Parts: sequence; structure tokens; C-alpha cells
Amino acid sequence: MASGTGLQGTGGGTIDRRTLPGEFVTLAKEAPLDLDSGARLGPINVAYTTHGTLNTDKSNAILICHALTGDQFVCGTHPITKRPGWWDTTVGPGKPLDTDRYFLICPNLLGGCMGTTGPSETNPATGKPWGLDFPVITIGDMVNVQKLLVDHLGIGQLFSVIGGSMGGMQALDWAVRFPERVFSVMPIASALRTSAQNIAHHEVGRQAVMADPDWCGGRYQEEGKRPHRGLAVARMGAHITYLSESALTRKFGRSLQGRDRVTYGFEADFQVESYLRHQGITFVDRFDANSYLYITRAMDYFDLVEEHGGVATDIFAGTNVRFGVISFTSDWMFPTAENREIVKALNGVGANVSFVEIETDQGHDSFLMDIADYHRVIRGFLEGAAELRGAAGP
Amino acid sequence: MASGTGLQGTGGGTIDRRTLPGEFVTLAKEAPLDLDSGARLGPINVAYTTHGTLNTDKSNAILICHALTGDQFVCGTHPITKRPGWWDTTVGPGKPLDTDRYFLICPNLLGGCMGTTGPSETNPATGKPWGLDFPVITIGDMVNVQKLLVDHLGIGQLFSVIGGSMGGMQALDWAVRFPERVFSVMPIASALRTSAQNIAHHEVGRQAVMADPDWCGGRYQEEGKRPHRGLAVARMGAHITYLSESALTRKFGRSLQGRDRVTYGFEADFQVESYLRHQGITFVDRFDANSYLYITRAMDYFDLVEEHGGVATDIFAGTNVRFGVISFTSDWMFPTAENREIVKALNGVGANVSFVEIETDQGHDSFLMDIADYHRVIRGFLEGAAELRGAAGP
Repeated sequence: MASGTGLQGTGGGTIDRRTLPGEFVTLAKEAPLDLDSGARLGPINVAYTTHGTLNTDKSNAILICHALTGDQFVCGTHPITKRPGWWDTTVGPGKPLDTDRYFLICPNLLGGCMGTTGPSETNPATGKPWGLDFPVITIGDMVNVQKLLVDHLGIGQLFSVIGGSMGGMQALDWAVRFPERVFSVMPIASALRTSAQNIAHHEVGRQAVMADPDWCGGRYQEEGKRPHRGLAVARMGAHITYLSESALTRKFGRSLQGRDRVTYGFEADFQVESYLRHQGITFVDRFDANSYLYITRAMDYFDLVEEHGGVATDIFAGTNVRFGVISFTSDWMFPTAENREIVKALNGVGANVSFVEIETDQGHDSFLMDIADYHRVIRGFLEGAAELRGAAGP
Repeated sequence: MASGTGLQGTGGGTIDRRTLPGEFVTLAKEAPLDLDSGARLGPINVAYTTHGTLNTDKSNAILICHALTGDQFVCGTHPITKRPGWWDTTVGPGKPLDTDRYFLICPNLLGGCMGTTGPSETNPATGKPWGLDFPVITIGDMVNVQKLLVDHLGIGQLFSVIGGSMGGMQALDWAVRFPERVFSVMPIASALRTSAQNIAHHEVGRQAVMADPDWCGGRYQEEGKRPHRGLAVARMGAHITYLSESALTRKFGRSLQGRDRVTYGFEADFQVESYLRHQGITFVDRFDANSYLYITRAMDYFDLVEEHGGVATDIFAGTNVRFGVISFTSDWMFPTAENREIVKALNGVGANVSFVEIETDQGHDSFLMDIADYHRVIRGFLEGAAELRGAAGP
């Protein structure tokens, strides 16, 4: 590759997840979990962190569901990246998800690559990494594993389940699968089903990974390789979808990167190029390529409407769960219109739902940002849910 | 690669451009062309087609500028794809660009791969393919070559220069570089400069190409290879930007491809996946990977505002050219706001400009489509320009 034109990552080796901080538990030991595909999986390891203290009546537990490339390290310093956890803006003492008040449970999801069972972990049947022998999973399967964790922690009813993007899909799925086990859910920048455009973006990312010869048909671990470049390209493309045109223009515009004029070449002349390359290169040091395939596929398959015979109002019929739905004006990946579909389905059955659209130009990634209006809504929703729950609340 | 999961193209070999139909001329023979980068290039081959008949006073010539992946085969059957040319909806007898009335000139642009000098052609200095030794070019360089072609054809003033997307950039550049040589220009779904978001998309596409080991640092022709998979991934990602979310939802939604239920695997379960893979696979049979790098780079560098000291109204100061600007409501790659910047710059200097935004959900690709309102606008603009030109008109 010509100098300066490519994705030169450090290409860090496989991380030994067992050396990571946080909790670790093996679930589904006695009986394997029935997956939506019909396959069975077990035992299942789950890596997770908790923050705050569970109160005596176990009424202050909030489950945080992470998005596609998130993990259990929501706050503080991430052990691998050495940067703040993905929701450090929102989780901590005095923050909207207040660790002085709530007990937060943050598991790495099924199919992930930060200690929870996924394609990069060892298949007990063969002693080799799962690779593409790992069964294709769904959002529902992820939720079923989270439910086993909540059982393990001895918590009868979660005060709330909260998550952004694919995390919001998990929150919605909790309300569908285990309505008695959740008092409230807060899906942020989410949808009842994945749109054609998002499936399209996922497919491009998967093809970028699979086009890398170092992917080796999914067996790169056995071959001692990693499809760094394909995964970096996938991340670069996806990253654009997390932002908005106006945010890109405001942040970067056509500014040049450390030079006064263009070089008439293929180096990263523009700041936006340099930024995207950095996003791609750093991502591959903390994420597994096969996990990327499996988790995007789980998103593609998410369709609560189809699961309920195509009738959106059947999804939440008779629910007692309180819902707080949040969208962002500049989010074109999960636009307000798709979040409103959730609200419509809930209103159609007279469910308890509040909905707020936050004005911001930061795109889909807004759910990770420190936006005052947004944080006020999270606080307000949890306050309202606590009041509704009364003495039994946090 | 696991069966059914990847981009299995035919991977056709390099096309011998000399066997293609159409015209072919060698320009810049006496003196090489001074490029914007400071490099010099010549002689320069240009492959082009013409349609219709040049009238006796040579007043009915329209130059059609193609976009990133277009070529000189605007109408009729494309000699390689065997499908209609890229603007067959718009060019032909009785169509908006009426071959019974106008003489249409359609060159393959500088840096292209359909016969005009570009990185896949032979470097006369070495006898080998140019590869990355080809100088980085600009939209202005492309226009300078087109001007040599117009000189060669003996046409003093073009009746119009018309193009969509990057073709619109060339049309604008004509009005800036050679205002006396054009009576009117019609930039469609275009902009005064390339946005940060579009640079970002281009960079992902380039990195997809360069991540393919078969790219060989740009020397794939000498190595007897072609970076099919990287280029296909680039095309898939770009293709999404040419459409709109609503068009994707309307065309494909979550419909499955030739199956009743999902397969819980990585095959193209969804129609939108199958469609995108097809776009990627067929593209590599007609396009050159290095051309893709060079032409996207030329777009990145396009910035008429910067070229005029950051003052948009200086771009067209004193112009006598008549402008017809068209945008499409659902185009998020070149949104109406960016097209309006062209109009504002023109209005600021009292130029003759008409502007129409067409209501459609077909996204950026609308400029290729058979949309009645859009075609009416093209016809109307050319009629108006002909009236304005009076007896000297077509």
C-alpha cells in the first residue's frame, strides 16, 4: 500500500477477556438456552459491570443495554481504550443515571467480544474459537441472556431497562418478553424494526469484513490473522451514519489536516478523512470482526411488528410497563418518524408513554452526548417512574 | 469465503477500450496540458460519442458531462453492460435532450476508464499502465480537456453544458473557466463545493479499494490482478447514498429474497442486500478501481468558493451565461440547500438564473430518472435559452 494512503492500525492481538475488570458469570449451565433460530446454546458466559448499590428491597436496579459496538464499560476509564466509557456522560454520581441512587447493571451482550459468549470465544464442543459455527442470534436471544443474569442477581423486577440505538431495541424487547420483570423502559433513538436503509448499511459493513482475505471465511483466529482493514472500512462507513451532515460540516467542513493546501494525492488532506481513518484504526483494537457480523445481523432481524402478525398495536397490548421514548432531530439512522412508530403502537393500546424529541445537530450519536435537554428528560422520566412506583420505588 | 456470503463477481478482465464504438481523438499533442496540480499531461486521448446533427451555424451543440461512474454511452445500449446508457431516459429523439434538434457531445472524462486518458491507460513515458503515477486531477482539468475537444470539433460557443452530480460541477466550472464559450449551463443535483459528508463517503470508498490486497498499491494491472472485492464494497456503500430512505423502504422494505423466512445466516436474506451485492458485482466489470480513486478525489477538491477567495458572489461576477439549476427534495448527497448556494451566488451578481426543486422520493439518483416534472424543466429551460438566443439559437 502506498505510504500514507491506508489504514495503518496497530493491529493489536486478541485481548484476553479474563484479565478485564468487572464481573463474570456462567449461565445456562444446567439447560442450554433455546435460541430464536432453533439452535441451543449453553453454557453462556456473561461479563458485566455494576455501579451503585442495590437497595434492600432490590427496587433500584436499572439494566443498561449497549449498542452495536458498546460493551460493559459504561463509565470511568475503559480498560482497553484508556478513554472514558461509552456512556460516561450519563452514568455516575449525580449524573442522570445516578450511581448514588440506582444500581446499574451493564452486561456485555450475547455475541459480543468483551467476555460474554460470542463468536471469538471458544466453542466447548471443539475447543476452538466458534467463528462462523456460532449460531446466528437475535435481539431476543440477547434479552433472554440478560434475563438469566437478572435472575442470577436475584432481582425480581427491574426498575428500568434503558438503552440507545440497538440498546433501545433490547429495552423494547424486554417489555415484550418479560413485561412483569420491568417497571419501565426507556428506548432512545430506536425503532420497532430495522429499516431497509439500515440493513443496507449493515450489509456493506459485513461485505467489507468478508472481502478482507484475512477474514479467512471467519476462521481468522485459527489462522493467526485478523481482518483489520476490512473491519476498519466497515467502521468508517458506519461512523458516518452516526453523525449528521450539519455536525460534519460544523466540526470539519473542508478544513485541511495539518497543511495549508491540498497535496494532490491520496493522503488524508482533509480533517474529516483523518478523523474517519482514526475511527477505523482504533476500532479494530477493541472489537472482533465476527462479532460485528453477528450483532449487525441480529439488528437486521429485529422486527417486533412482523413478530406480532404485522399489527403494531398487538406488540404491547395490555402492557403495564411505563415507556419513555426519546429521539433526536438530526438522527437519520433512527429518525424521529421511526421512534414515533413506537409511540403510536403504545398509544394504540393506551399504554403509559412519554415521548420527547430533542433538538440537536449531533445525529444518531446524540444518545451518547452530554446534551442538557436530553439529560433532563432521562432524569424526569426516572423521577416520574419512581413517583409512580411509590414506596416500592428507588 | 463461506458460500453465499460474499461478492462473487464474474471479475471480467480489462476491457480493450479501442474496440468500443464511438469517436476517439488525441488532443494536447503539441503542448501538454497544465494541470491544476502543477503537473503537465499530454498527449491526452478522449473517447466520446455524439448524437444528432450539428447545424450549419454550429449553434445547437450541447455538452453532456457525466458523473463519477458514468461514461460516454449516454443513450442506446451500453456496449459492455448491454443495458440502456446512463441517461437513456433523457437523451434521444423527442426526449428532453432531443437528438432531432440538438447536437450532443458526450466525452468520457479525464481520469475515466472508457477510453479517455486515465490511470488504467498506458503511460507513454514508461509503456506501463499509469497506476498511481497518474497525476491527481481536478474538475477544472476535466473541463480543460473537454474544451480542447470542443475546439477540435470547431464549435465556438456551446449552446449548453449540462450534467448531474459531478457532471453539474463540470457545468459550473465551464461557466467559470470559459464563460464566452457557453451560452447556458444546467447543473443538476450539484453544488459549489463538495461537503464534508461527501468527502467522508468518498474516503470510505477509497479505503475499501486500497484495503484490497489485489489493489497492489495501485499496480494491479502489472500484477495481473484487480481489486474486485474492494471496489464492489465501495460501490455498495456509495449506492446507498444515491438513494433515499423512503425509496429503499418503498422498493425493498424488509422483503425477503426468494425465501419465506430468514435463514439465520449471512446469505442475502433481504432483497435490499441482494440488490446491493448485485450493484457491487456488476460495477467492477465496467469500472476501474484507480479511476474510482482519482475521480472521487477530483470531487473532493472541487471548491469554487475557496478558488474565489471564499466569496461566493465572486465566482460568477459579470457572467452573461444563463443558468438553470435543478435539485430534488429527497437528495441527501447534494441536498437542495447546497443547490440553493449556487442560486444565491448567482442572484448576488444579478445573473440570469432559474431554479426548480423537484418533488420526488428517489434521492440523488433522481437526475437519471424519467420524472415528468423534471423533464419538463429541462425542456423548458432549453426552450427559454433558445428564445433568448434568438435567430442564432438552435
